Amino acid sequence: MTDDVLILVDQQKAMDHPKWGPRNNPDAEKNIARLLTEWRSRQMPIVHVKHDSTRPDSPFRPGQEGNDFLPLTAPLPGETVVAKKVHSAFIGTDLPARLEAMGRPPLVICGVLLANSVEATVRNAANLGFSVRLPADACWSCDKRDLRGRLWPAEDVHQLTLALLEGEYAKVTTVGEILRPS
Amino acid sequence: MTDDVLILVDQQKAMDHPKWGPRNNPDAEKNIARLLTEWRSRQMPIVHVKHDSTRPDSPFRPGQEGNDFLPLTAPLPGETVVAKKVHSAFIGTDLPARLEAMGRPPLVICGVLLANSVEATVRNAANLGFSVRLPADACWSCDKRDLRGRLWPAEDVHQLTLALLEGEYAKVTTVGEILRPS
Repeated sequence: MTDDVLILVDQQKAMDHPKWGPRNNPDAEKNIARLLTEWRSRQMPIVHVKHDSTRPDSPFRPGQEGNDFLPLTAPLPGETVVAKKVHSAFIGTDLPARLEAMGRPPLVICGVLLANSVEATVRNAANLGFSVRLPADACWSCDKRDLRGRLWPAEDVHQLTLALLEGEYAKVTTVGEILRPS
Repeated sequence: MTDDVLILVDQQKAMDHPKWGPRNNPDAEKNIARLLTEWRSRQMPIVHVKHDSTRPDSPFRPGQEGNDFLPLTAPLPGETVVAKKVHSAFIGTDLPARLEAMGRPPLVICGVLLANSVEATVRNAANLGFSVRLPADACWSCDKRDLRGRLWPAEDVHQLTLALLEGEYAKVTTVGEILRPS
């Protein structure tokens, strides 16, 4: 675990907005905070990815409270913040160059939404050749209505997304597993 | 529709391999062929993306029959072929440079698997700023067992994937809609 970079995706107040609807994993933020505490205590590298939406109606748009980091997992002074404008944290940012300069370390990627910015970032990372671990309990999903009107509960969206990423793009795991002494 | 580039993803014989299990959309190949016929008749740009897997056990590995194009949608002499080694057709290939040289045209992306290489390519394209249309009936999905043992039928995988891509990454549509005279 020594060299792994912890990447937190979109841990911003916008995720408290009611527009996302019902969610799963109510402990996700606490679980992310457990990872963060461990990474800080070991002085391992942390990257806080922040979404600066360009959409006028987005709660993530800069200048609104939703753009601020959630207090529980907010960066400390000196920690790396990478601002992105699209879903993948690897596009239009200096994240690829930063990780390249660090020798292409393995990544632990967590945050929200699992099936949106987290998934886009995980897929992109894997396809760029990075080894990725994805702690399922440090991410969350929300209900999704499909194009035929069927409502998919958040936990179903979560489980299918994890299954589609497992092996192909990431090793799906848990916070407990990552923090277990080796 | 005049400037759109038609991108066919992984239309290779490996997709006939039994390892994928039950699938949906048995007419997907015919639907892709309908797009191809129209694009050829109008002399619009076509890109055949081909998967050259580096995994020893993959039916897509070069040198095996599975690596060959499916006859119904195989490229004609002179048509562009882009070989990739990962899921996204934008990583490790000259596709970004080709599309850049063409003035960043809108894309129509189809092929297989919807939730794997097609989705990775669609997400990547959208995050790079391309406008993407995704004809749902010119893609297919296969059954997926999740990490808790639940078996998701191919059509469910298809519908949830489309819902997660719609609006965020692509305009989900049909072959009929794309070919309808405007």
